[in-house]
Amino acid sequence: MNKLSNADLLATLEWRYATKKFDNTKKIDEKTWSTLEQALMLTPSSYGLQPWKFIIVQDLPTREKLQAASWNQAQVTDCSHHVVFVIKEKMDEEHISKFIEQTAKVRNQDISTLEGYKKMMIGDLVNGPRSEVISEWAARQAYIALGNFMTAAAVLGVDTCPFEGIEPKKYDEILGLTGSGWKTVCACPAGYRSGDDKYADAKKVRFDAKDLIIYK
Amino acid sequence: MNKLSNADLLATLEWRYATKKFDNTKKIDEKTWSTLEQALMLTPSSYGLQPWKFIIVQDLPTREKLQAASWNQAQVTDCSHHVVFVIKEKMDEEHISKFIEQTAKVRNQDISTLEGYKKMMIGDLVNGPRSEVISEWAARQAYIALGNFMTAAAVLGVDTCPFEGIEPKKYDEILGLTGSGWKTVCACPAGYRSGDDKYADAKKVRFDAKDLIIYK
Repeated sequence: MNKLSNADLLATLEWRYATKKFDNTKKIDEKTWSTLEQALMLTPSSYGLQPWKFIIVQDLPTREKLQAASWNQAQVTDCSHHVVFVIKEKMDEEHISKFIEQTAKVRNQDISTLEGYKKMMIGDLVNGPRSEVISEWAARQAYIALGNFMTAAAVLGVDTCPFEGIEPKKYDEILGLTGSGWKTVCACPAGYRSGDDKYADAKKVRFDAKDLIIYK
Repeated sequence: MNKLSNADLLATLEWRYATKKFDNTKKIDEKTWSTLEQALMLTPSSYGLQPWKFIIVQDLPTREKLQAASWNQAQVTDCSHHVVFVIKEKMDEEHISKFIEQTAKVRNQDISTLEGYKKMMIGDLVNGPRSEVISEWAARQAYIALGNFMTAAAVLGVDTCPFEGIEPKKYDEILGLTGSGWKTVCACPAGYRSGDDKYADAKKVRFDAKDLIIYK
C-alpha cells in the first residue's frame, strides 16, 4: 500500500480549499466516485453505529431547490456530486439490533456473544443520559464523516466545499425526510474547481501555532 | 504533488482501525508529527474561525490521570502522541476580532474591508440565534478536525483511535481548563499499532451500501 510523504500530504492540505466555483463541465469519474462513497462508508463512528445516511443528489431540479435553501450558492448545481449528510434523530433498539446482526454476519460470530455489547449501547444511547443529547451525538458523528470525506477527496485530487450555511429543514422537505426520523445536518458539494475561482489562490488564514497547539 | 490512487486510498481506509493496543516503544518521528500538527491546523472550520485548541499530552503523570478519565484505556499511556480536542465554549467578539486581524495580516488586506464580514459573524454567532447552540457548533467543528486528523494520519501510516468515551469534565480539571472558557470534547491517541492487537484484523462492520448511500 502506497502512502503519502509528509510533503505530499501537506501540499494536498494546502491545495484543498472551500471551493467557491466548480467547473460544471467536469464530472468525477465512476471509479473515483465509488472510492469516495467507500470513504464515506468507512468513516469511523461511535460504537461503529453509523447513525447516518449520505444522500447524493444528481437530479437537477432537486439541486435547484436545494440551492435556494443554501443561500443560493451555485456550487450546489455546478458541482459534480452534491452530498447531503443526514442523521438519525433518535437512536433506537431497532437500529442497534440491525448493527448487531450485521456484526454477527460480517465477523461470523454467534449473535448471542454480542448480547452484552447490545445492552450496553442501548443502556447508553437509548435509555441512558446520552439519549437526551442523542441528536447532537449523531450530528458529531456526521462531522467526522465530513472531515474524512474532504481529506479523502483532497488526496484523490477532488475539490469540495463544506456547507453548514444551509437551511436543514428545507433540505429535509425537499429530500422527503420530514417526519422520517432522519434529518439533514450539513452538505458537501464535490467536483473540480473552476480555473477562474479566485479563492483558490487566497492564502489560508490560520491562527499561529502557539495559539492552537498546546503541549502538556 | 503526488496523489493517492483510488486503490491506495481504499487500502489505507481499510487498514485504519480504532487501535486498541499501541506499541509503546514506537514514537512518531518529529517530521511526521509536525505534518500531523499542520494537518490539524489546516482543518476547515465554519467561517474559518477555528474555535479550538489541540492539546498534545506528553507528560506521563498527566497521561496516567487522563487514562483514569478514559475508562482506563491503555492507549492514553501507550500511544506516541495523545491529542485532546478542546473547544471555545462561547464565541465572542474578541476571538472574531483576532481572526479578522489575522486575516488582514495573512492576506495583506486593509482591515476596514473586513468590517462587514466581522459584523456578520458577530450577528450570527455572538448575538444571533446560533449563539444558543454555540457550544455544539464548536464541538461539530472539532469533529471535522477529528475526521481530518484520523484520515491524514492513515495516509501517512500512523494509527489512531477516536476517543469519545472519556469524562470531559475530568479532562478539563486535569488539563487546567475548568473555568477557562475552553472545554474538552474528545481525544485521539496516535502512534503505531502493537503487533498483537487482535482488533487489527477484525473485519470492519458497515451497513450495506443500499442503507447508507441514497441517490436522488
